[in-house]
Amino acid sequence: MFRGLSAFPLTPCTPEGIDDAGFLRILERLVSAGVGSLGVLGSTGSYAYLTREQRKRVAALAKQQAGAIPVMVSIGAVGTAQVLQLAEDAQHAGADALLLPAMSYQTLTDDEVFGLFETVSRHVSVPVCVYDNPGTTRFTFSDDLHGRIAALPRIGSIKIPGVPADAAAAHARVQQLRGKIPAGVTLGVSGDAFAGLGLNAGCEVWYSVCGGLFPHTAKAITDAAARGDHARVTQLTERLAPLWALFRQHGGSIRVMAAAAGVLGLTQVDCLPRPLLPLPEAHCAAVAAVIEELGLE
Amino acid sequence: MFRGLSAFPLTPCTPEGIDDAGFLRILERLVSAGVGSLGVLGSTGSYAYLTREQRKRVAALAKQQAGAIPVMVSIGAVGTAQVLQLAEDAQHAGADALLLPAMSYQTLTDDEVFGLFETVSRHVSVPVCVYDNPGTTRFTFSDDLHGRIAALPRIGSIKIPGVPADAAAAHARVQQLRGKIPAGVTLGVSGDAFAGLGLNAGCEVWYSVCGGLFPHTAKAITDAAARGDHARVTQLTERLAPLWALFRQHGGSIRVMAAAAGVLGLTQVDCLPRPLLPLPEAHCAAVAAVIEELGLE
Repeated sequence: MFRGLSAFPLTPCTPEGIDDAGFLRILERLVSAGVGSLGVLGSTGSYAYLTREQRKRVAALAKQQAGAIPVMVSIGAVGTAQVLQLAEDAQHAGADALLLPAMSYQTLTDDEVFGLFETVSRHVSVPVCVYDNPGTTRFTFSDDLHGRIAALPRIGSIKIPGVPADAAAAHARVQQLRGKIPAGVTLGVSGDAFAGLGLNAGCEVWYSVCGGLFPHTAKAITDAAARGDHARVTQLTERLAPLWALFRQHGGSIRVMAAAAGVLGLTQVDCLPRPLLPLPEAHCAAVAAVIEELGLE
Repeated sequence: MFRGLSAFPLTPCTPEGIDDAGFLRILERLVSAGVGSLGVLGSTGSYAYLTREQRKRVAALAKQQAGAIPVMVSIGAVGTAQVLQLAEDAQHAGADALLLPAMSYQTLTDDEVFGLFETVSRHVSVPVCVYDNPGTTRFTFSDDLHGRIAALPRIGSIKIPGVPADAAAAHARVQQLRGKIPAGVTLGVSGDAFAGLGLNAGCEVWYSVCGGLFPHTAKAITDAAARGDHARVTQLTERLAPLWALFRQHGGSIRVMAAAAGVLGLTQVDCLPRPLLPLPEAHCAAVAAVIEELGLE
């Protein structure tokens, strides 16, 4: 399942909790577009902001809507005890894979992060994707640590945060990391602005925020990558530059995607879990303009 | 209660969960030394690593052991929904005050952090201490934001991360912040190496990691501050330099204090919640040597 387009949807919220109907509308959009897998409760899915009960419910709703499409569920938390509870909940809900970041509070050592993955890999029965996201977790994986972790049982993929902005350097980066990990473990690019570079550099999967709301737009890119059409991948990714610019402008993708879900009428415009606040109205208008201009769908 | 020595104990753990007996031994040490208040589940108390159920238990054990000494309980979490659950649990356990940090995952805006404190101040019935700790939470409070939050109902104190290393600059820093907040809100210094500077600069309370295991040592400093004996405060704090050096060497105080609790025989040497790992044996010996050399008690 760690190949092609893995779509990372928002978890829309209301003041009362999860917006079930809005979440199901978003999922239906992804399922009917035929994405390769769903990655629920990723950073865009607000895993870090939700209670254990809310995370259980999100996993259950995703499995209910996904049909035959595999569902990966993030089990990220600061403490190993919390992570193991969440892993049990996710597996109970039917998760086909688990996504595990190295969330930090105290600065973690490599041995501590290895220990976390080692413990989880011993306790779970479904594949695990290593979630490398230094921007939010404040932990930076070395390639050696990736190698140690990827050799553990059940590790199926690594979600990397991006690649260098130059095609040759991106290729070298992916090759370097691949040299450290077992052959069966795939590499997935994240940080949507790097999607084209990462796919052309040999990443097997795009863990995609854009694909969590605009699955046709994102799937055209992973389909081109699957055909080996590097030029088309580059062209399709580069034309999305105005979307990546919005992500940069707003300190990440989550507030932009929440605004976009509201613009599309899938959720309320204010659909982020507190303490996160929605973009002001003027910025939502700019998001609407980019959706229209690029024909995102 | 936001005055004098507020002792922040570890929450010792075993592979099975909270080490109840070890925690009670630590609390008994603090209670019999007559600390001004207990601050359980602070950063040193590993709040971020524990499950909701474990945090409930820690608050209950602290209230059970504290007698007449007020107990402050940290309710820190990334999401507001989680924070409100924890606030309810803590109040149900009898917490006399709540400690609230601005934990971040996505980078937070000032309005988002204000909104968190505004919501919590509306929902709770006991005083709240604002926990400003950019090192672990990755959110930096501006003085203007401190002023907005401190004006909310139920805000009783601000736990600041430290003061400038020069006495005059520390005084100016405390005066500057005090100028932004209501008269009834106290300022408490944190970051133990800054305790003497902070107290001499006018902080009313020391939120103390050292005091969470060595209450007599810490209380001598806050007692001197209460007498206005600045020279003695400085002398007593500066002689603890070898302890502060250990904190710096190990990227913070928590691993050092966990080793110290083991050295004292209050807990197992390995008493940190995973994924945190204990200091290697050679470093524990160095911790033991500093305890002995300084006569920490």
